[in-house]
Formats: sequence, C-alpha cells, structure tokens
Amino acid sequence: MSKQFVVGVDVGGQTSKIGVVDARGEVLAQCVIRSDVYGKDANAFISALGDAIKGCIKDAGKEFDDIRGIGVGAPNGNYYTGEVAFAPNLAWAADSAVKFSEMLTANVGLPVSLTNDANAAAQGEMAYGAARGMKNFIMITLGTGVGSGIVIDGKVVYGHDGFAGELGHVTAIRQNGRPCGCGRTGCLEAYCSAIGVARTAREWLEASNEPSALRDVEKISSKDVYEAAKAGDALALRVFQYTGNLLGRTFADFIAFSAPEAIVLFGGLARAKEFLYEPMMTAMNENVLKIWKNKVKIVFSELKESDAAILGASALAWEL
Amino acid sequence: MSKQFVVGVDVGGQTSKIGVVDARGEVLAQCVIRSDVYGKDANAFISALGDAIKGCIKDAGKEFDDIRGIGVGAPNGNYYTGEVAFAPNLAWAADSAVKFSEMLTANVGLPVSLTNDANAAAQGEMAYGAARGMKNFIMITLGTGVGSGIVIDGKVVYGHDGFAGELGHVTAIRQNGRPCGCGRTGCLEAYCSAIGVARTAREWLEASNEPSALRDVEKISSKDVYEAAKAGDALALRVFQYTGNLLGRTFADFIAFSAPEAIVLFGGLARAKEFLYEPMMTAMNENVLKIWKNKVKIVFSELKESDAAILGASALAWEL
Repeated sequence: MSKQFVVGVDVGGQTSKIGVVDARGEVLAQCVIRSDVYGKDANAFISALGDAIKGCIKDAGKEFDDIRGIGVGAPNGNYYTGEVAFAPNLAWAADSAVKFSEMLTANVGLPVSLTNDANAAAQGEMAYGAARGMKNFIMITLGTGVGSGIVIDGKVVYGHDGFAGELGHVTAIRQNGRPCGCGRTGCLEAYCSAIGVARTAREWLEASNEPSALRDVEKISSKDVYEAAKAGDALALRVFQYTGNLLGRTFADFIAFSAPEAIVLFGGLARAKEFLYEPMMTAMNENVLKIWKNKVKIVFSELKESDAAILGASALAWEL
Repeated sequence: MSKQFVVGVDVGGQTSKIGVVDARGEVLAQCVIRSDVYGKDANAFISALGDAIKGCIKDAGKEFDDIRGIGVGAPNGNYYTGEVAFAPNLAWAADSAVKFSEMLTANVGLPVSLTNDANAAAQGEMAYGAARGMKNFIMITLGTGVGSGIVIDGKVVYGHDGFAGELGHVTAIRQNGRPCGCGRTGCLEAYCSAIGVARTAREWLEASNEPSALRDVEKISSKDVYEAAKAGDALALRVFQYTGNLLGRTFADFIAFSAPEAIVLFGGLARAKEFLYEPMMTAMNENVLKIWKNKVKIVFSELKESDAAILGASALAWEL
C-alpha cells in the first residue's frame, strides 16, 4: 500500500508551485515558492525547492516512503536529459543547461521525471482530466504562447531529441506572416496566443475606422478583446472568429499527422470557448480529409485551473 | 530455428507482388499476379493470392512451419481492422470494406498483418533500409501521389482509427492552392507528386514565353521534366527547385510535430535527388525552429526498387 502518492512541481518564471497528489488527482497539500530570487544560482533554487517539497510532504501527513516520485513541468524541460536548458524566463537556466532532475534527486532523495509545461498538461489531462481513457489526442495550450503535447498510443511523444510537439511553431500563414518570437514568420503562436489575439485587434483597429469599444483601451490585451466580445462588440467578435478559423484550419493538418480522437484545449485563451468553438469546428471540418469529417472532437480541459499545472506535472511521476 | 521467414505482399492496382523474405531482407523467391482481372469479386482475388503465396513458399524451398506470417501493403489498408476499404484503384474493394486479413488467413492458414503502402515502406526502411537503427523518422513516398509513414519510438503511428500519416494532404499552399484529388486545395500532394511536378511545368509554360525543351513534349510527365532538367533546361530546373523548396518548408512543420532524426524519401520522384536535395535542405533549415537547424537529415531509400514494396510489406510480419 506504499508509494500511493506523487509530488507535482510546476516551475514558472515568477513562482513555482508544489503539490502532493493522490491517484484520483486530489491535491492533498500545496505550497508556492519564488523562482526569480536566485539570480543565476541554480543550486540555490534547487535547494529551496527541495526544502519546499519536503515541507509539503509533511503538510500532507505523508512519509517519504509513501511517495513514488516527483514530476516536474518546466519551460524547456527535456524528458530525455532531465535538463532545463536555455529557458529565457528562468535567470538560473537562461544561459546554460541545468541538470535539474539529477540535482533535485540528489537533494530530495526521490526519483524525478521532467518535461515541458505543455507535455505535463497533456499527462495531467490524460490522468485526471478531459482526456481520461483516450490513447490518441493532441493537447494545445493557448496562453501567452501556444504550446502542445501530443499523445500517441497513450504516451507523450518526445521524438528523437526530447523536443517534439512544438505545434505553436508550425506555419499558419505562409504569405506575409507575422514575425514570431522564435525568429520565424507566420507561426500559429503569432496569431492564436493571447498576444496574437491582442495584436490582431490592434492591427484591425489601425486599418479601419470601424467603431469599437476597444478604441478606448490604452494597451489592448486578449482579456480586453474577450470582454468587448462579451459585450457584443462586432470587431472583437470577428477577432475571435478569425482566431478560431485559423486554429481549426491548422488542426486539420495536425489530424492528418496523428489521427487523434480529440484536440484538447487548455490555457487562458481557451476560456473564450463561447467565441472560439464554433469557428474552430467549422474550419476544422471544412479542411480535414473526408475520412475524418465530423469525427474528431474538440474538448476543453476539465482540470481546476489553480490545480492544473501541479496535476499535470504530478502525472509524470506515476510512470516512475 | 523455425519461423525464420516471412511473406511480403504488395497489392497494387494492376499487379500484386509476393515474396518470401529472410531476416536480413533477402528475397528468396518472388512472383506476381494480376490484381485487376477479378471485377468486384474479392473472394476470387484472395483465392488467387493464396495460391500464389503457397506456390512462392514452395519455390523458396520452405515449409509452412518456417513462415512467421504474411505482411501486406495495400492502398487504404487499415492496420487495426485488417480491411481494405474504398480503394478507388482496386475494383474488388472500391465500393466496400473487404475483410482482407481475415479472408487471407482463412485461405492460407497463416497470420496476416495489413497496412497501407506508405506505412509498409516505412517498416521496410526501418527493418532493412536507410532507417535501420532509427527510432524516430518520417517516411515520405513521392510517387503518383504523396504518402507517408511516421515512426515514433520504433513504431509506425496508426492513430485513433488506423489512418494516421496522411501527410500528402497537409496544406502546402494556403492561398489559391491547387485542387487536390482528395477534394481539398493546396495539398502537398497537388504540388510535390509526380503529377504535381508535371502540372507545375505545364502551368509555367503556359504563363510565359520562356524557351524550354518541354514545349516540344505533347503530354508532359514528371519524367519529361526530369530529363529536361538533366539536359540543363532552365525552366525544368526551376520546377525542381520550387518543388524541393515546398517540400523543405513543409518538412519544417513535420519536424515541429515529432522531432524525427531524419526524413526518408522513397518513390519515383525521389530519383530526382540531384535536383531536389539542395533546395529541400535549404528550405527545411530556413524554416525550422532553431533547436533543429542543421540537425535533421534527409536521406533516400536504400532498398532496391524492384524489391522495396515486398520488403516493406514483409517487415510487418516480423511483429506477428
């Protein structure tokens, strides 16, 4: 009856969240530490993280022997190497490859499994969420950027080097595509992320004189566009229609790759479900091969947002 | 020491090839039967195929007990269901789903594993060819159409329904794309197949007065374009440059999906390696995310063309 619990760690640019989780996805205890107060000193961060994990296990009323292992979701986390490498938002891993798993295991004395945030989200959705029982699905995280985790035959795809599933950086617009943060142009992320949605609104406002509540907003965010759409603003509604259409068209190409049962959406922008779902589904079914027409589902994450990142990371540890 | 041999069957529109193969990929005996003389009678075809297989095993000097099983590559062959369904080029399977594996097993008394031609090619390349030792690669067949077989962690990807890997039908050209045989527009297959290459040449000849040896050809085929390019024809050379560029750009998106070690090319059009390789590599490396720049190989099939289809199909049977 031992080893019935796992620890999930979600490493973010500002804070890292830690939770002790049971097999049903209940978070028994959780805590948060800062990620951004250690400068370039990765050892100091790992040491603080180790202390927090030990404390959290205690808070949950569990012993070390009860814990199967630690799952970690981190930006640029590599499943094969256990490294967090060249992650721009983590000062202690911005210029080098940090042997994260090795260092954390040395500190805590428990096995560690590491991957990037989107892959962790896919694991979480499969273990506890909207993809329970699915063996083949594609997780798309619509946040500041666009991430993805691809599951085939019940396993997250890591590819030859551990970096598979960068679907935010496939080409959505070929001609005169927007520059993307990655250095390419026309990436899905440049259009269908929170930042992309805000940019579409700003571009359209500049290009016309159409009245819109968004003209009164000084620095438009995707949240502003969402609220304007809720209030019936025609331009804001069209921005979501355009975004949903692009997503659906791109999903059609993803389907030709791995023939998934469903596309699973997660992240801040996925909250705009009411405006995105219809154009996404329509464009996907218009652009997909006949054999898949009206067969592939688009579903939304079922994990409580505050727990989702911890649950996703923790799900990795069940395989340890 | 028994079960050291397999049978490979390549079902084509006009003929079907049968071979007995050993573990090193040597074809010990082979024969060919017609596929197109049975009208809508699938039973008659399977019966003829069964007889040919039995004869071929005899010709190879082997007993039934020496044979592990039969691998079959067939248009629209489904790995999960063992059916050949709605294959336009096979009269006996054009309007219905034929329970191919079940029927052939009943006839021959050996287990049968079935998939489509491109997936069989990927299996063959992995077992005996250019992808030996690779666990993650994408096979692209450049023939009359464009097919694909995706290998992840040493296994061909079949997806939720058995139809994964239709990369000929991802969108290569978004705006004003050519109509494709599948009903979509802008598909990779509409540009980068043998038919697509011939069409590009014809379109470009019509759109200009540029002199070209191809103007003297009545019905231009991809072979004509290849020969003109070999003779230094400027327009023909540009057609291959354009085709290679489109392939490379699209490969960049495939890499973002599964992070393969290599793209493996096979098929009639792949013979134009001398004209395609350079523009393909350049476009792929220009369009891929930084982490993959100059890291992913493009390699060409190493299987003898006359044996390749049999070997590919036979490789399926080793898993039986």
